[in-house]
Amino acid sequence: MQRSSSSVRAGLRHGALALGIACLGIVALIWAPVARAEEGMWTMDNLPVKQLQAQYGFTPSADWIKRVTQSSARLALGCSASFVSGDGLVMTNHHCANECLSELSGADHNFMQDGYSSVSQPREPKCPAMELDRLDTISDVTPKMHAALAGKHGADYTHAQEAAESEIEKSCVGGDATTWRCDVVALYHGGRTALYRYRRYQDVRLVFAPDQNAAFFGGDPDNFNFPRYDLDVTFLRAYENGHPAHTQFFPFDAAGPKDGELVFTSGNPGSTSREAPVAQLQLLRDLELPSIFGYYSTLDGVLWEYSRGGVAPAQDAQDELFGVENSLKVFTGWLQTLADPKMLAAKQQAEDSLRKWIDANPHRKAQYGDPWATLAPSLVAERRLFTPFVMLEGTRAPRGFGGDLFGYAKMLVRGAAERAKPDADRLTEYHDAKLPALEAQLGSSAPVHPRLEQTLLAFSLTRLRQALGADDASVKTILGKQSPEELSAHLVLFTHLGDPKVRMALWKGGPAAIAKSTDPMIVLARTVEPIARGLRDQWDNQVKAPQREASEALARARFAREGTSVYPDATFTQRVSYGTVKGWDENGHQVPAFTNFAGLYDRATGSDPFKLTRPWLDAKSRLDLATRFDFASTNDIIGGNSGSPVIDAQGRAVGLIFDGNIHSLGGDFTYDGTQNRAVAVDTTALLAALKTVYRNQALADELTSGHLPGGRGKS
Amino acid sequence: MQRSSSSVRAGLRHGALALGIACLGIVALIWAPVARAEEGMWTMDNLPVKQLQAQYGFTPSADWIKRVTQSSARLALGCSASFVSGDGLVMTNHHCANECLSELSGADHNFMQDGYSSVSQPREPKCPAMELDRLDTISDVTPKMHAALAGKHGADYTHAQEAAESEIEKSCVGGDATTWRCDVVALYHGGRTALYRYRRYQDVRLVFAPDQNAAFFGGDPDNFNFPRYDLDVTFLRAYENGHPAHTQFFPFDAAGPKDGELVFTSGNPGSTSREAPVAQLQLLRDLELPSIFGYYSTLDGVLWEYSRGGVAPAQDAQDELFGVENSLKVFTGWLQTLADPKMLAAKQQAEDSLRKWIDANPHRKAQYGDPWATLAPSLVAERRLFTPFVMLEGTRAPRGFGGDLFGYAKMLVRGAAERAKPDADRLTEYHDAKLPALEAQLGSSAPVHPRLEQTLLAFSLTRLRQALGADDASVKTILGKQSPEELSAHLVLFTHLGDPKVRMALWKGGPAAIAKSTDPMIVLARTVEPIARGLRDQWDNQVKAPQREASEALARARFAREGTSVYPDATFTQRVSYGTVKGWDENGHQVPAFTNFAGLYDRATGSDPFKLTRPWLDAKSRLDLATRFDFASTNDIIGGNSGSPVIDAQGRAVGLIFDGNIHSLGGDFTYDGTQNRAVAVDTTALLAALKTVYRNQALADELTSGHLPGGRGKS
Repeated sequence: MQRSSSSVRAGLRHGALALGIACLGIVALIWAPVARAEEGMWTMDNLPVKQLQAQYGFTPSADWIKRVTQSSARLALGCSASFVSGDGLVMTNHHCANECLSELSGADHNFMQDGYSSVSQPREPKCPAMELDRLDTISDVTPKMHAALAGKHGADYTHAQEAAESEIEKSCVGGDATTWRCDVVALYHGGRTALYRYRRYQDVRLVFAPDQNAAFFGGDPDNFNFPRYDLDVTFLRAYENGHPAHTQFFPFDAAGPKDGELVFTSGNPGSTSREAPVAQLQLLRDLELPSIFGYYSTLDGVLWEYSRGGVAPAQDAQDELFGVENSLKVFTGWLQTLADPKMLAAKQQAEDSLRKWIDANPHRKAQYGDPWATLAPSLVAERRLFTPFVMLEGTRAPRGFGGDLFGYAKMLVRGAAERAKPDADRLTEYHDAKLPALEAQLGSSAPVHPRLEQTLLAFSLTRLRQALGADDASVKTILGKQSPEELSAHLVLFTHLGDPKVRMALWKGGPAAIAKSTDPMIVLARTVEPIARGLRDQWDNQVKAPQREASEALARARFAREGTSVYPDATFTQRVSYGTVKGWDENGHQVPAFTNFAGLYDRATGSDPFKLTRPWLDAKSRLDLATRFDFASTNDIIGGNSGSPVIDAQGRAVGLIFDGNIHSLGGDFTYDGTQNRAVAVDTTALLAALKTVYRNQALADELTSGHLPGGRGKS
Repeated sequence: MQRSSSSVRAGLRHGALALGIACLGIVALIWAPVARAEEGMWTMDNLPVKQLQAQYGFTPSADWIKRVTQSSARLALGCSASFVSGDGLVMTNHHCANECLSELSGADHNFMQDGYSSVSQPREPKCPAMELDRLDTISDVTPKMHAALAGKHGADYTHAQEAAESEIEKSCVGGDATTWRCDVVALYHGGRTALYRYRRYQDVRLVFAPDQNAAFFGGDPDNFNFPRYDLDVTFLRAYENGHPAHTQFFPFDAAGPKDGELVFTSGNPGSTSREAPVAQLQLLRDLELPSIFGYYSTLDGVLWEYSRGGVAPAQDAQDELFGVENSLKVFTGWLQTLADPKMLAAKQQAEDSLRKWIDANPHRKAQYGDPWATLAPSLVAERRLFTPFVMLEGTRAPRGFGGDLFGYAKMLVRGAAERAKPDADRLTEYHDAKLPALEAQLGSSAPVHPRLEQTLLAFSLTRLRQALGADDASVKTILGKQSPEELSAHLVLFTHLGDPKVRMALWKGGPAAIAKSTDPMIVLARTVEPIARGLRDQWDNQVKAPQREASEALARARFAREGTSVYPDATFTQRVSYGTVKGWDENGHQVPAFTNFAGLYDRATGSDPFKLTRPWLDAKSRLDLATRFDFASTNDIIGGNSGSPVIDAQGRAVGLIFDGNIHSLGGDFTYDGTQNRAVAVDTTALLAALKTVYRNQALADELTSGHLPGGRGKS
């Protein structure tokens, strides 16, 4: 499975800090001068037109490009999505909506486990904390950023970057942050900078979700494997002023794709490290990845055992456990890929060649300097800072403060201090343009589960002490005379941050409210803040700034040498991949491109995670068992692409990406088209399941007609 | 902490199979032609006399050697020990007696948590399943083994080896396996073969154990760290015919060692891989170690969360959890050491030099052949077989069948089949000479904890399916239509193997009883047996036999080139190390060699694991706080050395090894005397704690006088 919302976040937002690699690498494909056939996560203004014409005789029209752009969307916390009707209907994965489904669940109905089918559009329930961003326009702001950063280093560089981003985003949002979201994004690791403008929807409602058994049939054992039999879909609806939104959309193709057909994905790959210098990959392999892998493995064991405590604990921990197990498969794939000396040797060779090219000409040497010399001390700093930084400042695992409650406290404490500053002086994530998403999180009615909170906090504090040592000054300050178990029990018992009203009052109260709060979680966050903030500054100035500076120099050298016929590393912004529907050869055994319903029933044992619910068992006789279910294609995708539509050359939706095969796990570092496969649900299966299994004819009709039954919504 | 009984077993008995490395490497120190000062785990017949004379002016006398040999002992399941009175008093670590302390515990008294002080010798309670082996003689059987193995390969080699070992061991035991234990041990990975004869004691009783808070003060956070404040000791007594045994022993030195003093350890280092060829270390680093590390990490999380379920679950899981966390620190150290490219490069260089030396001379080429060519296909087989082998045949983690109950079932099923064969045709561990230890395990009155069993089994079956895939034929055979959770619940609920009488009846009933048993655990073990046994044969013949064959050839080449001034890799047999009591420089900060009681009280926070019990708090005013507590020395030790006595040049006990510092974790692969330190309890602290804290004057008197109060025992 592609990394879920949780794990995309791990890999993307915080992983970007944690792994110290997502935002760092160097210009595209140093190690492979030309992208191989079907390789690439392409930006809209640089589609691989020549390859498409040569290989498929296909030329994307301006209209095709515009429609693909404006029908594409993304869930702010991770995952991709698309509009599939003119009345705001949105298609994404079930596992991308885990958080909404968990949060809506209560004693009366478990939305995640049992699924949900809306009775009628007006009764669709609102997801408590979901933000959907529909792509509107993309523009190039490279010259502005280059001008702002020229000649800056270290802390000056960090500050200049934050100030320039703040100014560009503010002007783009135009004072209406409720309607628009604007993100400045460094492509080619700073070689180019783009501004992505999104229409922001914070009123997103649930239309349909299958039961978890069908959505995640095969569970963790089948995850990242193929053949596969999952209906990993959730339909949502974007609302505007209380009514369904009207937008561009991908018409639904009821026939699905054919074997060998050219197909595209339009989605938001989270992060890749294909451009990263070898020295950074070695640091990842030898220091960071083992530490991350160990943390996630242990957390997996904790949550597995926690979930065995009964129905309620299992339900509470389900989303978290899924995210952890999904990430673990990804990290296992990384470990295997990075253990391959050939891959690293090829990258090293390409890097050496670029270095020679620069050194061969005094003009070039003057222009690009020695990026590797800029990089070297940043790696020393990264090695030194990694553990304290992730444990004390990290907000996703690995971290020292687990659970949601401390996260709220930290957001409140830091948010109060940051908002008191001019926008340009703030940390990126507290710019005015970002505040609506933060407020949605703080105000979320999603339930907090105290026992789970206590478990996650006790676990992470134990890891904090383990990682830094019992004699570390920060550890002594945080724990005092208490054990992690005692401290977490006390904090969770006495904090009031589980209540969104309390959180919003503190948010609105600003620095004065924070300073006088006696809530123990706020008190702890206040204590940790100077330590964490100090580490953040060191990390930004000593690790990130020089690495981006080196990357920019390398990007410019690379452009000068090879032009822009390459794609940038993934940045959780919209990209198009192209490929064909195709199986692969697995040790001499041919894996077919498609599975069908018959295969699902063959694989069902009656025991979790191979158990079918009653509606599926009952529907067996009515379903055409030859109906295509899931399929594999050569599209180059990665975590964050979950929920991407698969579209054909006519721009119609023919499938829904939800996973990659096991060989796709090396995709963070390299693309191997012989075995790397994307995995999607066929639109044929989606329609058949809606009609025959879930008996939701209205939704099937909206998908095939492109609008709500009875006309264009009720607006 | 040195790997405990549990973890030594992981690293030694099964790890020896699992890691595919313990029994494999090549002859000593290819990569470092001469052992560095204070490096080495020396055999009694090859002590580093020249170094000792040159550096310390000390020459071990024949009497010294004999007394050290015959006062040394080992716990059969892992760990070292020593005799410290003429009346069978044995000193080892608290963590080495965990299993006994756990097994003796019940609702009325938690021996492990609360400790125990025997009221009088006749009332000492028997450890349910402990075997203590006191070293008697060591003899060289190299010529016999060479003759038996000459010209053999693959399955023939495996069979010839088992037959020769059987014959040598049988003749050594002389028909009295109750009194004698004889082990054939390949030193220098087959370059030499030695026969170790032990006096076997299966009646071992508990004399004294401190409370766990004192024995393991600082817990996992302080484990493998120094400065340290642990009283990690347990005193046992060996009985012969119901009376205390009378043996050689190490007199107790009440003054302890001095800073800079020459000290020795006599113990049983479990396994090292210092002689292993680089290709094997790479396989360990890239494939096996990440898999083992992931398994242990997840199991750590499971047991951590399990233990939070209350006092009883915590008590039941305590021994297992300790073993897992201890092993995890070791594996983390291994990952770090193997990530150092310099270490591997040095080993590669030494290996290349040996290869050139062989190739330089046609006579040598004829004599030693090409050991690397013999090795190469075995590594391909190891890569292919590793996962199925450990999951289906492994009896210690990582494994597919966790808990004790399946272990009993497997021992019964395999034991019945093996015992029906002539001794020479059996697997090594079912030779007649080994049966008494197996029977002690099967007949043990140690309690089985059903909930813990079910957890461990459900977890390991989940990992089995994860590792081999849901479509694997063995997985399908084992699980059928059930989930791991369902299967484990059924097995644990309906098996009767928790009862030692049932186990012994099946053992005595032999193949007929096994064939007709309907006990579900026996039925499962019968189902698994052909698969597991098949993998064992493939592993033995395709991996181990060629690796030992290659190692032998390399050992002979190495002897011819460099003589025997080197020590063999550790084999869980008695070795002597020498070194000095000494601190070290940690990033410019000097760590002193000794801690004292004052430091203990300073470090106590009142919260686990830094909490002192009432007797310690009460004793503070009566103790001389300047008393030396723990100390560091340069002795070269490894897991399995836990419980080794530290002795001075006069052969008196001055301390008790219980751990190494964090730098000692690289010791599996290399020894670095600048920072690698052994960690021991000072005999001064042992006596002070016995007298002043635990008020056990009788035991203190036995230690200082060398005999039980009132004369030599009651025999």
